[in-house]
Amino acid sequence: MDVVSLAHGSGGSLTGALINDLFRRHFENPYLTEAHDAARLPILSGKTAFTTDSYVISPLQFPGGNIGKLAVCGTVNDLAMSGARPLYLSCGFIIEDGLPLSLLETIVRSMADAAREAGVLVVTGDTKVVNRGAADKLFINTAGIGEIPPGIDICGSNATPGDVVIVSGSLGDHGATILLEREQLGLAANLASDCGPLGGLVAAMLSVCPQIRVLRDPTRGGLATALNEIASQSRVGIELDEASIPIKPAVRGVCEMLGLDPLYLANEGKLAAIVPAEMAEQILAAMKNHVYGKEAAIIGRVLAQPVGRLFMRTPYGSRRILDVMVSDPLPRIC
Amino acid sequence: MDVVSLAHGSGGSLTGALINDLFRRHFENPYLTEAHDAARLPILSGKTAFTTDSYVISPLQFPGGNIGKLAVCGTVNDLAMSGARPLYLSCGFIIEDGLPLSLLETIVRSMADAAREAGVLVVTGDTKVVNRGAADKLFINTAGIGEIPPGIDICGSNATPGDVVIVSGSLGDHGATILLEREQLGLAANLASDCGPLGGLVAAMLSVCPQIRVLRDPTRGGLATALNEIASQSRVGIELDEASIPIKPAVRGVCEMLGLDPLYLANEGKLAAIVPAEMAEQILAAMKNHVYGKEAAIIGRVLAQPVGRLFMRTPYGSRRILDVMVSDPLPRIC
Repeated sequence: MDVVSLAHGSGGSLTGALINDLFRRHFENPYLTEAHDAARLPILSGKTAFTTDSYVISPLQFPGGNIGKLAVCGTVNDLAMSGARPLYLSCGFIIEDGLPLSLLETIVRSMADAAREAGVLVVTGDTKVVNRGAADKLFINTAGIGEIPPGIDICGSNATPGDVVIVSGSLGDHGATILLEREQLGLAANLASDCGPLGGLVAAMLSVCPQIRVLRDPTRGGLATALNEIASQSRVGIELDEASIPIKPAVRGVCEMLGLDPLYLANEGKLAAIVPAEMAEQILAAMKNHVYGKEAAIIGRVLAQPVGRLFMRTPYGSRRILDVMVSDPLPRIC
Repeated sequence: MDVVSLAHGSGGSLTGALINDLFRRHFENPYLTEAHDAARLPILSGKTAFTTDSYVISPLQFPGGNIGKLAVCGTVNDLAMSGARPLYLSCGFIIEDGLPLSLLETIVRSMADAAREAGVLVVTGDTKVVNRGAADKLFINTAGIGEIPPGIDICGSNATPGDVVIVSGSLGDHGATILLEREQLGLAANLASDCGPLGGLVAAMLSVCPQIRVLRDPTRGGLATALNEIASQSRVGIELDEASIPIKPAVRGVCEMLGLDPLYLANEGKLAAIVPAEMAEQILAAMKNHVYGKEAAIIGRVLAQPVGRLFMRTPYGSRRILDVMVSDPLPRIC
């Protein structure tokens, strides 16, 4: 079986072959083809958004995606959550000696497919190979550049009492899927990661309401962690209606068996939005028209009190605090 | 001893503490403090340069630097080699459970110092912690954004017969230093990595000659690999004068004992420039005035033939080919 070896990361002719035969072939675009130390990109017309994430997920492949698709969608989504149009990605591979080349190619092909769907170009990259035992198969870092259109000001501190909380679909799918894949629980739930690029959905939302206050993709730590951060940054309270939160029965089942709360599980293709109340229905309608927002729902509201707190109103009328998570039960979820 | 644990990478409150108490404190700047999913940067006025590298060097600390200083300088240098003014960095940490927090802080402090010297801001970042055995202590990815001034066109395909080859100082220092550190050879050579940021040196060179044709920092694979790439991309030959190439006696000694060629060893604070012959002396003078160019030297010239080949003229008048390296003798050099 052909595998990646240390020589592929040495900067010599095998590195060149890997770059030309694999990365350039799949990511083909004029900026990458120039083969500079740095890609030279056209002048950007708006403010620049810049973000990075490393992906260390285990296993590398899972229902609904793989580490490559995740590495593109995750960074595209971080750009989109600032209101930016995602444009360019960098990509750094850290590969353990012995990784099958066919698996690397599968992952790179998924990255190229996801980039095409998201409308971004992978314009610069780097490959390092480390000895066996020095990494777990493959880690990928992506950094992304996007352009923020004039007039957009989306920020975690913008939530205002009276605003409405919307989510784009069911919560916890990614976390529950990885949990099942990894822990060999013997459960046969029909689950897949929601991993997907949200730039188009955000553009559709901004086209009906440029005054969206906050956008957040609830990855590590899930929706509860993302909304706790917003409550704290905006110095507001946030109240959710338990009955209105979309959670798939299979996710709920896995969580009940294992004593987990789906609101703390990672999502990789969902967003939470805080929007002015008077625009909420129009935004919701725009979301439902988009492939990544079909199950969007209004799930709560922003209150003046208690500052920095997230809580849940149950169908029985009681309220409970959703506290900041100290530690995720699942390492290496993304 | 306080160590990094899986909980520090979970996205929960310990992740927040690590970000606030360590990263934000050392990298302090208004873009990072905003704490968005993506940093929001001002409009850039020139073409944008964008690059990335992952750093997997072993050992993490070495004479002349550590993985953090390297991660800042390496990416700053890649930007500078496109003629760009380095401006912003992203930073992704992949940490093995159990890394001492004090070592992480030493490394982060070195990054902040190097960024300050280079005039760049670390504006966005990410931290992942993986279980013991899934990574070798610490890997760092940095991506960088720079601004290319109008009128600058530096590119590996621009070398023209008649041009002159300049290097900014002695070659092989980084590679020889890491080799000695790692291999426990029992040699007591007085060696240190040349790891340093070259943006200021490049600015000084461009101020006397905006028509510099090619810049390259000869990292993995060393000077011979960098010049082979340029010869191939520009479809020219490159001839070096062996006697004029600056190599420290200690580096030469290590290489002779181990049968290595210093021209294939990595540098982390040196550049090679291809410049118009009539400007070479002025550029050289500007370089010698800069702290990172004191030992700059003219070492060769560009010829029309043989296309794609790098060769060396020895003091005895003979010529030998410096071929493309198949594989570096030293993995994890950067």
